[in-house]
Amino acid sequence: MNYKMMGKFVGQILLLEAVFMIPALLIGVYFGERKAVICFALTILLTAAVGLLLGLFGRGSRSVFRAKEGLACVGMCWIVMSLLGCLPFYLSGEIPEYIDAFFEIVSGFTTTGASILSEVESLSNSMLYWRSFSHWIGGMGVLVFLLAFMPGREEGGFTTHLLKAESPGPNVGKLVPKMKDTASILYIMYCILTVLDIIFLLAGGMDPLSAVCIAFGTAGTGGFGVLSDSIAGYSPYIQNVCTVFMLLFGVNFSCYYLLTLRKFKDVWKDEELRTYLGIVFGSIVLIVWNLRGYYDTLAETVRHAAFQVASIITTTGFATTDFDQWPNFSRALLLMLMLVGACAGSTGGGFKVGRLLLIIKSARRSIQQVVSPRKVQVVRSNGYKVSEKVLASTNAYLAAYVMIIIGSFLLISLNGFSVTTSLSAVLACFNNIGPGLEMVGPTGNYSEFSVFSKLVLIVDMLAGRLEIFPILILFSRNTWKRRG
Amino acid sequence: MNYKMMGKFVGQILLLEAVFMIPALLIGVYFGERKAVICFALTILLTAAVGLLLGLFGRGSRSVFRAKEGLACVGMCWIVMSLLGCLPFYLSGEIPEYIDAFFEIVSGFTTTGASILSEVESLSNSMLYWRSFSHWIGGMGVLVFLLAFMPGREEGGFTTHLLKAESPGPNVGKLVPKMKDTASILYIMYCILTVLDIIFLLAGGMDPLSAVCIAFGTAGTGGFGVLSDSIAGYSPYIQNVCTVFMLLFGVNFSCYYLLTLRKFKDVWKDEELRTYLGIVFGSIVLIVWNLRGYYDTLAETVRHAAFQVASIITTTGFATTDFDQWPNFSRALLLMLMLVGACAGSTGGGFKVGRLLLIIKSARRSIQQVVSPRKVQVVRSNGYKVSEKVLASTNAYLAAYVMIIIGSFLLISLNGFSVTTSLSAVLACFNNIGPGLEMVGPTGNYSEFSVFSKLVLIVDMLAGRLEIFPILILFSRNTWKRRG
Repeated sequence: MNYKMMGKFVGQILLLEAVFMIPALLIGVYFGERKAVICFALTILLTAAVGLLLGLFGRGSRSVFRAKEGLACVGMCWIVMSLLGCLPFYLSGEIPEYIDAFFEIVSGFTTTGASILSEVESLSNSMLYWRSFSHWIGGMGVLVFLLAFMPGREEGGFTTHLLKAESPGPNVGKLVPKMKDTASILYIMYCILTVLDIIFLLAGGMDPLSAVCIAFGTAGTGGFGVLSDSIAGYSPYIQNVCTVFMLLFGVNFSCYYLLTLRKFKDVWKDEELRTYLGIVFGSIVLIVWNLRGYYDTLAETVRHAAFQVASIITTTGFATTDFDQWPNFSRALLLMLMLVGACAGSTGGGFKVGRLLLIIKSARRSIQQVVSPRKVQVVRSNGYKVSEKVLASTNAYLAAYVMIIIGSFLLISLNGFSVTTSLSAVLACFNNIGPGLEMVGPTGNYSEFSVFSKLVLIVDMLAGRLEIFPILILFSRNTWKRRG
Repeated sequence: MNYKMMGKFVGQILLLEAVFMIPALLIGVYFGERKAVICFALTILLTAAVGLLLGLFGRGSRSVFRAKEGLACVGMCWIVMSLLGCLPFYLSGEIPEYIDAFFEIVSGFTTTGASILSEVESLSNSMLYWRSFSHWIGGMGVLVFLLAFMPGREEGGFTTHLLKAESPGPNVGKLVPKMKDTASILYIMYCILTVLDIIFLLAGGMDPLSAVCIAFGTAGTGGFGVLSDSIAGYSPYIQNVCTVFMLLFGVNFSCYYLLTLRKFKDVWKDEELRTYLGIVFGSIVLIVWNLRGYYDTLAETVRHAAFQVASIITTTGFATTDFDQWPNFSRALLLMLMLVGACAGSTGGGFKVGRLLLIIKSARRSIQQVVSPRKVQVVRSNGYKVSEKVLASTNAYLAAYVMIIIGSFLLISLNGFSVTTSLSAVLACFNNIGPGLEMVGPTGNYSEFSVFSKLVLIVDMLAGRLEIFPILILFSRNTWKRRG
């Protein structure tokens, strides 16, 4: 490991984080939340100080980075960022235990939205803002931000490694030749969509702070709200706005870029987008059918079904109703949607529709090869040949994904809660969704888990958001050998 | 599809089945079970008649078989065999519904051991014998039997296809150059081990019929017993005998062949065997630790833990205690052991330890390739290089395996039972184990499911036993195109 280089990077991320906390401080000042303001000020100073020290330590490091180091660096950034980012919650006493505060901010940055709070309303406004803003930062990625807007980031292998590690999906598509420009375009589209969301929410009569927080939660596909009943208390109009925007943020952002280039045909023919919309539509129909007679009107049923399907498949985790009370088929369907996830290149988490398509195609090919051994077959995606390397690594991803679910499920089971609670907690955290079933259902929370279980779930959330490898690599002794 | 060829084969299998039913008929005569004897006689006549007719239809067929046709043929044999094999249960009225009788015999042949009976004791002795004998037949495979003991089976591609389709595991190891000899050796070892088991059970004071039935259930890793409480009512000695023999039948039979050749070192170094024993031992230790204070003595705890671990990992499904009442960690661990399965080349079902090892190794390699892209890495098993083709098809198997579990779980959930019931029912049937958790736990049964759910589970059991492809291929329209 090139420690100097890592220090330099983590330092820069911390300075950025300190800046990101300033709006929360200002909101505290505006609402006259004295204690919160002091805590934010202290955290900002501390974060900036640590960032500067690490920067000093990393001064003069050569910026030659190996792929492995890039991955480890990204994992490290996210952990350190969370260790410091949770301090306002903890110092203010609004979340009394450090582990809970840590859980909450990891859940924020990873856009999971799993909470240990039983009453969100008890948080001060500045804390609510910071909690939701962490979703927005984590959704597109903090290193992508650094790459996009800081001067002097060099092109080349290193930035590609970082971007690959932080961006969701099996392969990172460059929109334009330069990585830095790609990152900027992504963030600009992200900002525009977020602002649009805020405007639509304000039009529904929502107060400005709530609108901003809900939009952040939607944009990052996070799921933190500002009320204990999530989105259930808002008007049908607002619920529908959320449904639409959740689905929009679950789409591969390169589709939006293609739209600005007026390449409508390419977007319309995109296999992943079609499959994603197909799954969404099919699931809504099945759940509406399964829920017949459960709500008063068909319109209400469709609204709740569409909202919940959008919320789970995009891994947002908002709720308009206690879907844990739905009939078992709908619950099972939602549980399986947790495994699907949104499109690659979106802010959503989970396994990703694109990866699922590759897995199915590669399995179909292998079956055909069993059946007709002499035929040579090629896997195509949107008409292009998929390299064997990508197929192999996608299969490896599936294997690692299944193993992590199994391992985490066993570790969480030590806590003694039911199979459904333990399994859905792991699926909801690892896929960055938030609410699961039973104890961790939409009306429940994660506070009852032991410290050990919370740590396991924290690792799951980070591994889910960063797509496994950047976190896995931190557990390898080989990574920590001195170099350079 | 070469229909004549398929007819010829299914015909031969049915004639064999008619012969296999004769002992049950004789047992009926011995115990004076008049009605059962008539039903067996009728079924034998019908089965033989259908077999002869199919044989006539298939007369003069060319024995040129494509891989695909071999697979479809195996799938078909098993289905037809079950459709007729369940007639004694149904005709005698001992199982009043045909679908239930069909479920029961598929569960028998596939060595699942899932039952729709709430009181096994109400069956007549001849039916009990036939039910258990179906495990023994299905354990090593009926086509393997045909290959081993019928004169004039030609060598070559065709028999290899059949053997591959019916034998469990990612790759069929030929023990000796000729397939026919390999099949004979397998069956001889199978018989010897079964007889040994019977002797040990008789030594524990078990009555002969029960001893034979329990030994059949153990040998095929099936799980049908002769009492409603499975093995719980027997002495600790008998329970321990079962534990040992279950574990023995879960080992790759080529290990036993190597032992007869005195190649002890090869057996000792076998990676799959070591992993299998490691998982068994580790799981027992964890469950004993988790169960501390649950039973009166440590010895009793160890006995139950060892029995249940052996029963689940070998996919037998016997029970000495209601493990559904165990603490949640032990239940979760058993649920995960359902996913592991026994060794390849054993009579056990499930995913197979060998396949799991390949998946882990191939995933590890892909991760290393992400980390150090320029290194060329080879996956080895027992020191030998594993071909990329085997790796690809193992990964495809994992994908198909996960999809079938997800699909079946959703379909079963339509029945409205809890997530744990539905999920464990699918895992227990697809992996050919038998009992699951909650409603289908060791004290429950499958009778409450709808006809549709039973059909789904029947397909799962067959797909599990025949390792997916022979059943999957029957659903492809392409398979049924006329040829030859």
